[in-house]
Amino acid sequence: MEAKVESEAVPILIPWQTLKAYETDLLEKAGVPRPDAERVAETLVNSDLRGVYSHGIQNLGNYLTRLRAGLIDGKARMEVVRETPSAALIDAKNGVGQLAGLMGMELCIKKAKGAGIATVAVGHSNHYGAAAYYAIMAAKEGLIGYSTTNAGCTLAPFGGLTKSLGNDPLCWAIPSGGKYPVVLDMATTVVAAGKLNIAANKGEDIPFGWAIDSEGDPTHDARALAHGGSLVPVAGPKGYGLSVIAEILCGVMSYSSFGTLLSGERRGQNVPLDIGHFFIALDPSVLMPPDEFKQRVDTLAQQMKSSRLAKGVSKIYMPGEPEWEKYETNMANGVPVLPKVWENSAKIAAELGVKVPSVG
Amino acid sequence: MEAKVESEAVPILIPWQTLKAYETDLLEKAGVPRPDAERVAETLVNSDLRGVYSHGIQNLGNYLTRLRAGLIDGKARMEVVRETPSAALIDAKNGVGQLAGLMGMELCIKKAKGAGIATVAVGHSNHYGAAAYYAIMAAKEGLIGYSTTNAGCTLAPFGGLTKSLGNDPLCWAIPSGGKYPVVLDMATTVVAAGKLNIAANKGEDIPFGWAIDSEGDPTHDARALAHGGSLVPVAGPKGYGLSVIAEILCGVMSYSSFGTLLSGERRGQNVPLDIGHFFIALDPSVLMPPDEFKQRVDTLAQQMKSSRLAKGVSKIYMPGEPEWEKYETNMANGVPVLPKVWENSAKIAAELGVKVPSVG
Repeated sequence: MEAKVESEAVPILIPWQTLKAYETDLLEKAGVPRPDAERVAETLVNSDLRGVYSHGIQNLGNYLTRLRAGLIDGKARMEVVRETPSAALIDAKNGVGQLAGLMGMELCIKKAKGAGIATVAVGHSNHYGAAAYYAIMAAKEGLIGYSTTNAGCTLAPFGGLTKSLGNDPLCWAIPSGGKYPVVLDMATTVVAAGKLNIAANKGEDIPFGWAIDSEGDPTHDARALAHGGSLVPVAGPKGYGLSVIAEILCGVMSYSSFGTLLSGERRGQNVPLDIGHFFIALDPSVLMPPDEFKQRVDTLAQQMKSSRLAKGVSKIYMPGEPEWEKYETNMANGVPVLPKVWENSAKIAAELGVKVPSVG
Repeated sequence: MEAKVESEAVPILIPWQTLKAYETDLLEKAGVPRPDAERVAETLVNSDLRGVYSHGIQNLGNYLTRLRAGLIDGKARMEVVRETPSAALIDAKNGVGQLAGLMGMELCIKKAKGAGIATVAVGHSNHYGAAAYYAIMAAKEGLIGYSTTNAGCTLAPFGGLTKSLGNDPLCWAIPSGGKYPVVLDMATTVVAAGKLNIAANKGEDIPFGWAIDSEGDPTHDARALAHGGSLVPVAGPKGYGLSVIAEILCGVMSYSSFGTLLSGERRGQNVPLDIGHFFIALDPSVLMPPDEFKQRVDTLAQQMKSSRLAKGVSKIYMPGEPEWEKYETNMANGVPVLPKVWENSAKIAAELGVKVPSVG
């Protein structure tokens, strides 16, 4: 049995083009117009390419289920409801979170290129995938990008036991002179809820420190969240505080739900998620010539890389660099997908009449 | 001996008005024009009132020493060197960090009230005290404030041993419907360097987890930073990443020094610090009526406070609330100052010809 479990957990390597086409087909059949489905698939594949497997195809099943149940509107006509030269509020009208994120950051970039700095809040949206995708969009345009979202309840407030906050990510992306931007994409919990799902899909326990049980005690249970438990915030009150800020920027300020209003226990699972996203884009060229800015960022990177190394460490990474290394590997070798995740997608593909690509 | 050490560590309670007047006198005699000295003293007293003792009078001795040595220019004529309707770069010309911070956030608030969101970077500055003071300035005006700074090297990059980054703080302050704003002011290290100084001043060891020694091993040494050691980042790569971002926003983008350029070992102590600060102010009223925004923030706070409590916990706090409780206590009872800190200030007062208030 041991061997079987191990072999089941060995990922299948799938070329990113195959994965993107398959995901596009699935999303289209679930009700997303094809050009939009392609853009959503692009964000999912990008996460898997960067090794952020908690936010790629692993999440697709959930999106498809909710699209088919009418809990996400694949054809929502999102709308800018308030606008100034440097700020906007978008109503995503319960559309696909990724499309809302793309619309939000595109508008934010356009405004920042005029005003120097701009912000866009997006309300009434859904899970938008990895925060990094949107911040990196800004960095690719030479801007500093900030991206954050609120999310379903997985985190108790510091000192509490009731799940009342999301494991809300925050991401900064900053242009560099190198091939890739500097990217800090972090959840406010020790690990994202997706990492517990990966462990559960592998049939593995989680280490102490990732989650607490319903009484606040540390647990190895990868399904702790479903059993009344909660994620653990990074650095106690600091991670708790970062989640509170994200709930305000994303949920409170966008007329969306926030905090315990997003608790599955309270609402049941059969209502739209109703979360918000928040973006900032800042054009460093209003303060400094862009080449000089990038060169100075590279100088900082060189300083980090020149550090004396701790025992057992062979290289210092800049934030985001491990993901860019993985990106190059996965572009070349294919995206590793867990068999269980692949099988789950195949079941939905059969129902939707989508051909599963032959792989492995 | 034991009793003596303990009694030495019992703080003296000093009325905040007495403290502010004394600090103003000291700063004035050290070369800061009186109205400016008063504003700087106000920021220091505010930190001590909020219980952030690492950033109040404990730091004054260092400021005074550097002012007297000409390493900080108490009369610097700070200048806006680039400006758009929503962004600005200020050259602090090696002036007092607090005055640079005040000028930066005041300008940022003014611009945000016009544009909806604004950013100001301040370069060639000095230690500006607690990041919270500036973010709270924005919140008092009904705006969301963000404040961050880089700082002298105390932190090794993740996986490294060479101090290459500051324990750079970040602070968000958000208006609420209650008496005080929501304030998240956090360092990117497990504790600020100032907390090691407090322990050293008390003659106490520090707990494992605050600092590593020169070989990367955990240490109890409160003087670890002076002995080749380094602070520990919160949540490993996350805290490291947050410091990298702050070095870029504050140091790189403001034409100031950053990273190892700020290493005391490399530069010697006898040069200006040359750090930068970075501010954002955002007017939520461009997206939502201000009263509705505040009411929604209060709803989130009520959600947190309604959480089931963990064992041994009697109350859930919102970010910043413990400091506001301390603020009210210290306003009423006086600011607790450690005898060693008081004696250090008295020595400098004698040299400057400033009368030490009689206390205790």
